[in-house]
Amino acid sequence: MIYADYNGSAPLCEDVKEYLVNRFQTGPFANPNAIHHQGQQVLMAMENSRSVVAKALGAKMNQVIFNSGATEGCSTIFHSILDDALENGRSTIIMSGIEHSAIRNTANWYTENKGYELKTLPTTRDGIVEVEFLNKWIKEAPEKIAMVTVMAANNETGVIQPLKQISEICSANKIPFFCDTTQYIGKVPFSFKDSGIDYAITSGHKFGALTGTGILLAKDRTTLKPIIIGGGQEKGLRGGTQNYIGNETVAVALTTISKNFGKIEELARKRIKFETKIKNNYPSVYIIGEKAPRLATTTYIAYRGIHGQAVQIELESQGIFVTTSSACSDNEPVTSKVLKAMGLTDDIGRGVVRISVGLCSSLEVYEQIYEALSKAYDKLEQIKSY
Amino acid sequence: MIYADYNGSAPLCEDVKEYLVNRFQTGPFANPNAIHHQGQQVLMAMENSRSVVAKALGAKMNQVIFNSGATEGCSTIFHSILDDALENGRSTIIMSGIEHSAIRNTANWYTENKGYELKTLPTTRDGIVEVEFLNKWIKEAPEKIAMVTVMAANNETGVIQPLKQISEICSANKIPFFCDTTQYIGKVPFSFKDSGIDYAITSGHKFGALTGTGILLAKDRTTLKPIIIGGGQEKGLRGGTQNYIGNETVAVALTTISKNFGKIEELARKRIKFETKIKNNYPSVYIIGEKAPRLATTTYIAYRGIHGQAVQIELESQGIFVTTSSACSDNEPVTSKVLKAMGLTDDIGRGVVRISVGLCSSLEVYEQIYEALSKAYDKLEQIKSY
Repeated sequence: MIYADYNGSAPLCEDVKEYLVNRFQTGPFANPNAIHHQGQQVLMAMENSRSVVAKALGAKMNQVIFNSGATEGCSTIFHSILDDALENGRSTIIMSGIEHSAIRNTANWYTENKGYELKTLPTTRDGIVEVEFLNKWIKEAPEKIAMVTVMAANNETGVIQPLKQISEICSANKIPFFCDTTQYIGKVPFSFKDSGIDYAITSGHKFGALTGTGILLAKDRTTLKPIIIGGGQEKGLRGGTQNYIGNETVAVALTTISKNFGKIEELARKRIKFETKIKNNYPSVYIIGEKAPRLATTTYIAYRGIHGQAVQIELESQGIFVTTSSACSDNEPVTSKVLKAMGLTDDIGRGVVRISVGLCSSLEVYEQIYEALSKAYDKLEQIKSY
Repeated sequence: MIYADYNGSAPLCEDVKEYLVNRFQTGPFANPNAIHHQGQQVLMAMENSRSVVAKALGAKMNQVIFNSGATEGCSTIFHSILDDALENGRSTIIMSGIEHSAIRNTANWYTENKGYELKTLPTTRDGIVEVEFLNKWIKEAPEKIAMVTVMAANNETGVIQPLKQISEICSANKIPFFCDTTQYIGKVPFSFKDSGIDYAITSGHKFGALTGTGILLAKDRTTLKPIIIGGGQEKGLRGGTQNYIGNETVAVALTTISKNFGKIEELARKRIKFETKIKNNYPSVYIIGEKAPRLATTTYIAYRGIHGQAVQIELESQGIFVTTSSACSDNEPVTSKVLKAMGLTDDIGRGVVRISVGLCSSLEVYEQIYEALSKAYDKLEQIKSY
């Protein structure tokens, strides 16, 4: 069995499993806000986890807010920035056209319900956001821009965006830059400080921590406004008894991931080899974002004229689990919004499967996927030609 | 070691530990929204958990929304009801004076930021909400009441509120009734249907499920508006990849709890025996809410003239972990807001400790706590008399 849907959700990391099995035996279990020793032990372990997370992500401890995941982080950040931006004359949200549906839906909510205007940044055919438009739009009316939101790496294509350029433009114009780093953290070494990003988010389940965990990074935490009010936890920024067990697993998983960063180059090399071989043997194959900088662990691949879902099912029959686009839009039989934004047509859009592995995956994974994928293509080519 | 801070947070239930250790070995781990078999298996297990939860709580499956905990539930419900109540002329929130800080802070946020008016229901000296005031206020201007929020059982005192009466009044006047059932679910058999409540909430960590889990129950889910927007999960009511592992543990823990409901009477009897014995031996002792219907698992006890924190430390030195008030206000050296609302004075307020056990606790727990508490009182009486 090869699980190749890490961009959808990563399996629980082996180190996290081991950590939890031990933790279940020894405890402690308590409310981290309680005054007794058990509570204080839990609190200390959680703050230690925060320190590990901060270090792993190049952030300060007070920039790390634990929450339930990237989508909560997204809603918190939009609320924080847009709660009063309009009344200060900042009415425009600039968003890339390839954002995850969580970001897109949230931005649309603010345009439909709160009167914001949304400007969508175009991307190249390889899925890279065109920064010159950002520059142009900001120059036209910098005082009107409420926020810029561009993701770090795309969930479907794995294409890495020009973060540093975007953060420099935003910073020079004092415009908050929210970057969805959900597919980036845990796959690429990341320094929040060096990135210049104002707000970043991720979900623990994307890199092997427990489901229902997440991190919000804020350059200046005083700019945050909670959407979950509650009893003052996370210094008043996120109410509710802290998910201390979950937060500990975030630290464990990020530590394991950091140890695996050495594998990135080798994986990237093997991935390119796999893609090249497939393309050479199947001229109808198209690799999305091929020429762009991409995560070493993602291949988004289409066979023109063969439906992605057929390929997915064929791979599944060989014990390889992939998706057609993102998990959230997997059931839509149409070309994904990301591919449409990249200007790709339906013959490619309907043929895609997303193959995404993790830094903990075996280095042989791409050879195995090659074997399975070519078998699938061979079979489906035959059926097609009847 | 006796852990007696279940109202703060319950230890992970033994059945949940066992379940997770097995689950970690077998998997599957996947995004429940993915189309492949692993994703579908995860989805089915999660929906099965929803069905178990619904059955355990006397609700329909489509009334159960999984989230990250009671505080998130609270913010979601306030947002759902109050987003447009004011513009429909419904400007008053009626809340009890003994609500948990999460509810209180959220209600205050709406009065301070959105122009709502807050009316606080008084309670008897035993901590029971005075329903006649609710009746009176609603009769005065039923069309002005946006919502009523009264908890099911108080987190400090364990006093159970007249839910049925309140829900009937609200229902007759078509006023949404939000009931914080966080301290009730998992401690008392509960039927959402029979309760007549419109919205209920709880956190999994209060009854032995994983931290970071929660349930929102809504009589009519179409009245809900999400605060976490995201990609349409939980039928559009709570965005973000579902915490499927956590949600499974909610079902496991509630199943275990249901099996232990038979212990309630015995625990209640032993609790009364313990309280009576302590009172007989220490005339300065005051049991808060003594005459009210209370959870079988909570004793809120004051020794006039001896500081609660001193008692808590003495108990801790004997391996018994209790808190002085609730976990969230444990560090405040003043009489808790709940006790103030009940009209209790500082000589009691400063002397309290909260002893809270769970339905999985040993039936001998109250005998052991009696031994430890009398030792603590003896020692502190001596010190006091110097």
